[in-house]
Amino acid sequence: MALVPPHGGGALKPLLLTGAALEAEKKAAAGYKKLEITTREACDCFMMGIGAFTPLSGFMGQADWKGVCAEMKMANGVFWPIPITCSAGDEDGVNVGDKLALYCDEFGGLIATMDVTEKYEIDKVFEAKNVFRTDDKEHPGVQKVYEQKKFNIAGPVKVVSEGGFPDEYKGIYATPAETRAIFEKAGWTRIAAFQTRNPLHRSHEFLCKIAVEVMDGVIIHQILGKLKAGDIPADVRVNAINALVDNYFVKNTIVTKGYPMEMRYGGPREALLHAVFRQNYGCSHLIVGRDHAGVGDYYGPFDAQKIFLEIPAGSLVIKNLNIDWTFHCYKCGGMASLRTCPHGKEDRLLLSGTMVRKTLSEGGDLPAEFSRPEVVKILQAYYQSLEEKVEIKLHGAATGDVK
Amino acid sequence: MALVPPHGGGALKPLLLTGAALEAEKKAAAGYKKLEITTREACDCFMMGIGAFTPLSGFMGQADWKGVCAEMKMANGVFWPIPITCSAGDEDGVNVGDKLALYCDEFGGLIATMDVTEKYEIDKVFEAKNVFRTDDKEHPGVQKVYEQKKFNIAGPVKVVSEGGFPDEYKGIYATPAETRAIFEKAGWTRIAAFQTRNPLHRSHEFLCKIAVEVMDGVIIHQILGKLKAGDIPADVRVNAINALVDNYFVKNTIVTKGYPMEMRYGGPREALLHAVFRQNYGCSHLIVGRDHAGVGDYYGPFDAQKIFLEIPAGSLVIKNLNIDWTFHCYKCGGMASLRTCPHGKEDRLLLSGTMVRKTLSEGGDLPAEFSRPEVVKILQAYYQSLEEKVEIKLHGAATGDVK
Repeated sequence: MALVPPHGGGALKPLLLTGAALEAEKKAAAGYKKLEITTREACDCFMMGIGAFTPLSGFMGQADWKGVCAEMKMANGVFWPIPITCSAGDEDGVNVGDKLALYCDEFGGLIATMDVTEKYEIDKVFEAKNVFRTDDKEHPGVQKVYEQKKFNIAGPVKVVSEGGFPDEYKGIYATPAETRAIFEKAGWTRIAAFQTRNPLHRSHEFLCKIAVEVMDGVIIHQILGKLKAGDIPADVRVNAINALVDNYFVKNTIVTKGYPMEMRYGGPREALLHAVFRQNYGCSHLIVGRDHAGVGDYYGPFDAQKIFLEIPAGSLVIKNLNIDWTFHCYKCGGMASLRTCPHGKEDRLLLSGTMVRKTLSEGGDLPAEFSRPEVVKILQAYYQSLEEKVEIKLHGAATGDVK
Repeated sequence: MALVPPHGGGALKPLLLTGAALEAEKKAAAGYKKLEITTREACDCFMMGIGAFTPLSGFMGQADWKGVCAEMKMANGVFWPIPITCSAGDEDGVNVGDKLALYCDEFGGLIATMDVTEKYEIDKVFEAKNVFRTDDKEHPGVQKVYEQKKFNIAGPVKVVSEGGFPDEYKGIYATPAETRAIFEKAGWTRIAAFQTRNPLHRSHEFLCKIAVEVMDGVIIHQILGKLKAGDIPADVRVNAINALVDNYFVKNTIVTKGYPMEMRYGGPREALLHAVFRQNYGCSHLIVGRDHAGVGDYYGPFDAQKIFLEIPAGSLVIKNLNIDWTFHCYKCGGMASLRTCPHGKEDRLLLSGTMVRKTLSEGGDLPAEFSRPEVVKILQAYYQSLEEKVEIKLHGAATGDVK
């Protein structure tokens, strides 16, 4: 038995330069036209850099963009569910044939270089409706589509940076080659990825543990790129997840790693993108729970499970591991899901996100059936620090001491 | 997607006659030589009758017997892990060419007819050592091998009885064709079988629920044939399992059925036999837990999982779904297994079988973390009825009133 192959049928394709080639390209970039890109675009460069977006060789041209939006297929026939693109406006003066140096200040400057081979106007409504199933500007993923400039510029990319992720998330950040090496060393071939942008409460722990029972191992795989306002920041989440894993999982059944992408909140389509790059990371399965990668009420709770049945056979080697909505049931006397608990709502512990945040902000405890005390402690500290900031801000605003 | 095919590559092969052929064979049998067979042999006739032992067409000849013992392979190359044989002694006067009427009083008389095509002496030590990994006569499976008569007699079988199982276990007894129809109607293709000869405590419930989470459905599949002394009788067990399923499982995720075989207590080899006929029953997976089909200390706790890795690829279409030792852990706050609980023995609820029997016999309660109260009630009633019988017997013995 071997690990699943990378997506697209070939080897991993990391676009990050190293050694002399890296230094040479950095030097050459000084002479290229400079373009400031968004954090989403920079993160997509990092994903291409480490081979997580294998087999892409750069930002998508029009045929790929259109095929991906309309039927999740690139011009070469390879399955891909969400466009990976980079935009520019008239004011940027980018033309086909240019060599560009892509900059992003938030990630410390030069990220990558690109040979511009195409420039095409973005039909943003078409992209939004196809990818996000809505053109509602309140949708945070759609919002980012609309915030793009007028054109997509496309062409092969050479990545020269990892954006500080390896240092900032030491021990957590990992490339596909690294997780594949970890899995191979452990002798694992059946590996489920658990996608998360949140700290893990017991319902998430339970999803992972179901997978641990029936797989060789599970990777808790955290998104390290920027999230929408209100989400818990990555560093707090990493601590909370480490506290959970250290106290409630068996060693050598769990790997905790992260990847440098930004959420799209694209629900079903994003679940497929999560599957694509998890295959590159060497995972045989992606856990797909309730409302995977969703936001608000844009998607049905199990749309992200259903879409795996709708894509053409052979699109992916990785498989979805569907798990129903999970919770603690007092009559069951433990964690359960809608598939295993026959009891009523009144027997289940169900807390809204709003209630959880309120309790934690006030330093209150969550029931042990909802969240582990070690996790609660970390989240309480985070929410209380937020409260303090707000108080200081208010106070400062009144006295003029603090901006 | 379709159900797994029956074992051996062809269609289900039920050897039970029906209609006019049944009546004709019963009549003809009156003129055949009569042979009294054991309950194990009768049960194997019933299994062949309903097609559970597809593709067998009768009791095994010497080449099949030897191949199955030595390398789990019949003469035609088809995988088979435990010999299915029928013995006769010199005193029975059976000869090749005979037509036999196979009788078993415990199952109401005529069971099947056989055309005797072979008669060979049984190397019982060879069979025991190969199949049971021991020739210890204390092993209940080995004991049955030794209790056989001198020869195996082999040949095609026509089955004329179901031994009263359909009436005695109405709603539970099912043929492979029947469970396949149930699965097809439900739209299930991924079905795990849970083998049991015992009532289900929470650890077993947990095994089944893990499977429910990741499969289309689970069949709790009970053995209905004779067990060793000390095991809970099938009718009590059926009631206990129904009480559990009714109160703690979601409708349309569980099918509860039984099959008319006798346990061999053959550990790893029997796990493979359990897999073979579950494939015939339409199951894609067999749950293999700790000490599957084992007895005493004859097998390592996970030998029955390991053997699935040792058989040649392609031997079976059905797959094993391995699950580790399960229990309630107070620190985990729920059911867990050695793969998911990192805590110590002192945090876990572990009760010996002896302690469970003693508590139940005394009408005591088991902890809710060990067994569901609805199940406990049924088992208490059973054990107390045993106590009463023993008391009556003792009293009777003293006064001479009761035999």
